[in-house]
Amino acid sequence: MTQKIAILGASGYTGAELARIIATHPEMEIVALSGDRKAGMRMGEVFPHLRHMGLPDLVKIEDIDFSAVDLAFCALPHATSQAVIAELPRDLKVVDLSADFRLRDAAEYEKWYGKPHAAMDLQAEAVYGLTEFYREELKTARLCAGTGCNAAAGQYAIRPLIEAGVIDLDEIVIDLKAGVSGAGRSLKENLLHAELAGGTMPYSAGGKHRHLGEFDQEFSKVAGRAVRVQFTPHLMPFNRGILATVYVRGTPADIHAALAKRYETEVFLEVLPFGQLASTRSIAGSNFVHVGVIGDRLPGRAVVTVALDNLTKGSSGQAIQNANLMLGLPETMGLMLAPVFP
Amino acid sequence: MTQKIAILGASGYTGAELARIIATHPEMEIVALSGDRKAGMRMGEVFPHLRHMGLPDLVKIEDIDFSAVDLAFCALPHATSQAVIAELPRDLKVVDLSADFRLRDAAEYEKWYGKPHAAMDLQAEAVYGLTEFYREELKTARLCAGTGCNAAAGQYAIRPLIEAGVIDLDEIVIDLKAGVSGAGRSLKENLLHAELAGGTMPYSAGGKHRHLGEFDQEFSKVAGRAVRVQFTPHLMPFNRGILATVYVRGTPADIHAALAKRYETEVFLEVLPFGQLASTRSIAGSNFVHVGVIGDRLPGRAVVTVALDNLTKGSSGQAIQNANLMLGLPETMGLMLAPVFP
Amino acid sequence: MTQKIAILGASGYTGAELARIIATHPEMEIVALSGDRKAGMRMGEVFPHLRHMGLPDLVKIEDIDFSAVDLAFCALPHATSQAVIAELPRDLKVVDLSADFRLRDAAEYEKWYGKPHAAMDLQAEAVYGLTEFYREELKTARLCAGTGCNAAAGQYAIRPLIEAGVIDLDEIVIDLKAGVSGAGRSLKENLLHAELAGGTMPYSAGGKHRHLGEFDQEFSKVAGRAVRVQFTPHLMPFNRGILATVYVRGTPADIHAALAKRYETEVFLEVLPFGQLASTRSIAGSNFVHVGVIGDRLPGRAVVTVALDNLTKGSSGQAIQNANLMLGLPETMGLMLAPVFP
Amino acid sequence: MTQKIAILGASGYTGAELARIIATHPEMEIVALSGDRKAGMRMGEVFPHLRHMGLPDLVKIEDIDFSAVDLAFCALPHATSQAVIAELPRDLKVVDLSADFRLRDAAEYEKWYGKPHAAMDLQAEAVYGLTEFYREELKTARLCAGTGCNAAAGQYAIRPLIEAGVIDLDEIVIDLKAGVSGAGRSLKENLLHAELAGGTMPYSAGGKHRHLGEFDQEFSKVAGRAVRVQFTPHLMPFNRGILATVYVRGTPADIHAALAKRYETEVFLEVLPFGQLASTRSIAGSNFVHVGVIGDRLPGRAVVTVALDNLTKGSSGQAIQNANLMLGLPETMGLMLAPVFP
Repeated sequence: MTQKIAILGASGYTGAELARIIATHPEMEIVALSGDRKAGMRMGEVFPHLRHMGLPDLVKIEDIDFSAVDLAFCALPHATSQAVIAELPRDLKVVDLSADFRLRDAAEYEKWYGKPHAAMDLQAEAVYGLTEFYREELKTARLCAGTGCNAAAGQYAIRPLIEAGVIDLDEIVIDLKAGVSGAGRSLKENLLHAELAGGTMPYSAGGKHRHLGEFDQEFSKVAGRAVRVQFTPHLMPFNRGILATVYVRGTPADIHAALAKRYETEVFLEVLPFGQLASTRSIAGSNFVHVGVIGDRLPGRAVVTVALDNLTKGSSGQAIQNANLMLGLPETMGLMLAPVFP
Repeated sequence: MTQKIAILGASGYTGAELARIIATHPEMEIVALSGDRKAGMRMGEVFPHLRHMGLPDLVKIEDIDFSAVDLAFCALPHATSQAVIAELPRDLKVVDLSADFRLRDAAEYEKWYGKPHAAMDLQAEAVYGLTEFYREELKTARLCAGTGCNAAAGQYAIRPLIEAGVIDLDEIVIDLKAGVSGAGRSLKENLLHAELAGGTMPYSAGGKHRHLGEFDQEFSKVAGRAVRVQFTPHLMPFNRGILATVYVRGTPADIHAALAKRYETEVFLEVLPFGQLASTRSIAGSNFVHVGVIGDRLPGRAVVTVALDNLTKGSSGQAIQNANLMLGLPETMGLMLAPVFP
Repeated sequence: MTQKIAILGASGYTGAELARIIATHPEMEIVALSGDRKAGMRMGEVFPHLRHMGLPDLVKIEDIDFSAVDLAFCALPHATSQAVIAELPRDLKVVDLSADFRLRDAAEYEKWYGKPHAAMDLQAEAVYGLTEFYREELKTARLCAGTGCNAAAGQYAIRPLIEAGVIDLDEIVIDLKAGVSGAGRSLKENLLHAELAGGTMPYSAGGKHRHLGEFDQEFSKVAGRAVRVQFTPHLMPFNRGILATVYVRGTPADIHAALAKRYETEVFLEVLPFGQLASTRSIAGSNFVHVGVIGDRLPGRAVVTVALDNLTKGSSGQAIQNANLMLGLPETMGLMLAPVFP
Repeated sequence: MTQKIAILGASGYTGAELARIIATHPEMEIVALSGDRKAGMRMGEVFPHLRHMGLPDLVKIEDIDFSAVDLAFCALPHATSQAVIAELPRDLKVVDLSADFRLRDAAEYEKWYGKPHAAMDLQAEAVYGLTEFYREELKTARLCAGTGCNAAAGQYAIRPLIEAGVIDLDEIVIDLKAGVSGAGRSLKENLLHAELAGGTMPYSAGGKHRHLGEFDQEFSKVAGRAVRVQFTPHLMPFNRGILATVYVRGTPADIHAALAKRYETEVFLEVLPFGQLASTRSIAGSNFVHVGVIGDRLPGRAVVTVALDNLTKGSSGQAIQNANLMLGLPETMGLMLAPVFP
């Protein structure tokens, strides 16, 4: 039976990406779209690429009848998200794409996001949305907390290596290259084409990027001790895709083997042959993740590269994968779209 | 019953695009891939974005058992294509993506392609692949001649206007902006990123572009008299998408009405509200076509804009749409993939 | 003796481009920079690429001592510009880069810019800044009105053809491709990298673009009768450069000859050999203009292509060229910077 | 007195960049250009952006009269370069832009470039072209060996830190982002716009990039012991610019201080205020280098970012800077061109 879907915050890029995927999802139907400032507009005006879908018009959240909704995706900014979800029916399944329910610890949330969390009870209930590592919990979850897109990329490289005990936990450096759509549709000078195209620079460097909160929480949990990575993201002059270049210490062959073994049965995780490197061009527009490992000339050092599409596997594709689990649908349903190249 | 598909010339961009679409097509299965110079390679090496598909390795054409194939897509260069198809079993369904079977007139072929046609009997048999205008013939065709990508864009703008008699046939100017993937994967200096990115210039201007052969043939046929358009393509610094800006003479409202009426029931053709303009960003990665009409300040002049993805609706998507018809499958099967934005 | 220069509105792209050129101009020194919202900031913070120049900090206009200034460039938005210039000392030489003093007719100004002009006396005094056509007037001008960047591109193609009487005045179509920096540093959704990169679409089509006011005024003046062109600009996914593809009727060889003759002695105008086409990549970052002519296959039709850098020859380079004339300096001084390629 | 300049290998990007800079160099005149495969062509055909310069036509090297040449830039591929330079008059000043004379040790050359060096006597004579560190030697040099562009970027970050003894020599990681023009004008599939635009991936990772030979030689020389860095370059979808993100261990403030002190009097080196990061957009098209330092949240770790234009400071601008020294001209002559932004 087709699942009735609402998208809250449908006028941003992650909202549009949810709609794009649902367009060919055989068991999901979009019955409501909200967009606060754009309420009253047709979705085809806000996103002309979706005009063929015949989607419902954008409305305000309070005008949605949630009794007719099976699952709501919440693609709102953080802080707004927790306020909105706190008002939704408590039996409504929700997949949140914001940062609001990712961090278990109230102090950590406040540290990274600058104000106290207003719905810590929901926080306690939420299941972290890194599907391949929280699959069983997600099957029975009511509230899923989508991961940060950069946080997903880093974890796909590092989690299996911590699990397998094949790397030095104190020597992890993530140099990340992030496509600009990860910054959303916000009107900022550094996101203008004239400022961004044709070059690159780091941002939120020095340990200031909020996704470090997720890295700290998850890596420490897996390791059973505090793990702190060094993380430097760079803003890239392309729209989709994240490449994480991760510098680790350990035996390169063991590192490759640990990743290959961990992802052997995972449909969306492709571990490349040893020595091959991941490219964002090979996964753009899809839910697939490419993972490559190469040994460095310096003994005991390896470089792990992970490429994923920040809007798909890093955000909306992941959200649908988790929604599939929460709704009892096959996990990969609607998500086998091949990457778009060239 | 799943249709067995072969792709000849699978190492180019249109071959890859066929595979991308078939990845989620419910009734097609790729059983053979050929690639002359790359025979013996895995498809996932040639196109890492397809590695999850578990495709057959590339072989030489002569090593394919066509008795186990229901339909072959032929994505070879022109001239090669006619030679190859002439050798295929005569009862094999074939969708050709080259220029070899588009022109009915041997002299025209020689004029535009520089040498005599070597398989004019097949030429006579071929049905021109502009689906919305040759649908009935395609249902019973054995050999389909895919259109030029630029030729498709221009025809979607102009054919209905000739049919409806709403424009001056002697005053048609097509200024076209073409994404670089239309030039294929060939190693030419002007296709290098360093040469192309960050600017634009015309190419094949002055009436030299080969797709003029298709314009001449098709427009004259529809009009019942010779029609010659002016056509200036420009090479664009983006990978996918064609924007045709077509200057016509007539009453703008009538022009819009003629297009809206003609495409009213066409699933892939979206005629925008009068005054709105097409953008390549709104159709990239999909089989959809956006058509926009605006009146100029000069009375009796209108601008028709058409956007389509050269690799999808302009080539491989069109090919699959036609293959669906030829195989008795629903025409839109596997082709409802939404455009990728941003 | 070094000329003392002020730049009003130095925090936008044309302001930055003025500074970039003056960096190696042997006879100009920047003594004051204004930037209303950014007053108090260092220029090297607003534009890090200029930090080596040791420029004065940004101040408010009212804090500039104009008695120590030989010439002011005014790079402010239209409407603001006329208000500011009206308050400047009447003996100060001014080169305005806004639209405020381009149109001679008050009604035309109001029609295109939506409100009455507030300084029509200055308007009467201003000399239009298309150097190659107003050189003598500019030598004695106090106030120069810089042209629109698109307006410059179109005029370089068409003015000599009207002068020479070699084209049909009623059949001129300008299809223009404009790099995004022409839209300035304003925070608009359609100027974001995620919206703009990777595709194109028309804007201000149908005869709504304001530079039509300049075309109408100038072409009619040259022709001695009303001339109205059709003009469709397209927003391009690159930062610098305009390509005007101009469709005209006449004898192609005569058209090429008229352009070659008219620009024979012009240092910045390069007329390419007949049949060659202009590329924006060949002039980016410079004050040069490339002009190409090709005949169409349709007899009596030609395509004229003009490429210039909107920020240099279309705006700030032109402004310095005019300032050189107004200050009695050699016209090309500081402007022989070669284009940047690749 | 104007210096007579020859450019050998003028049909590649570094050759064009030399010509671009010399266009406004007050004391250099290009008297000969060679281009083997393109001999006989006009430079304005090979590089239309230089057509205004009225350059000599391309000839074969053997047709150049070197007695009328003061200095030759050699912009040929490695291996070819050593053969050509060995045949030039031994009193001719030469600035080589290839890799042929960078490495002092014959075994190292063979290791990185795959065949024995054929002119080790010249190798012994050559002075390494990193101007700020070899200035005195360069003043009397006859043969200058231009550095690798990536090698320059890394050395600007690290050399002063080794000199000052403020970092751990065994923990240096260079994650480098390189614009595509660094790969030259060669026809390779991965350099096509369709392959490269819109994404990124590493190349020559794992310690295979040839510029490691320079790092090893120079860092070890400065340190007085073997230093081996980890180096992972990434191919970027933009034409100009290198960003080196260098991970080092030491006190961030000391690291910043060491760089600021070392470059205090260097005209082309801009050390940004502590905590600011370098952007390639701020130096493109110029000979300037931006250096930024930030401390990481992990104590004792810092990130040094260096941005330079691979074609200018990384190659042809550096070459002219060195030629200025070798010819007794002011070092910065012709090189104060401001960066091009946007």
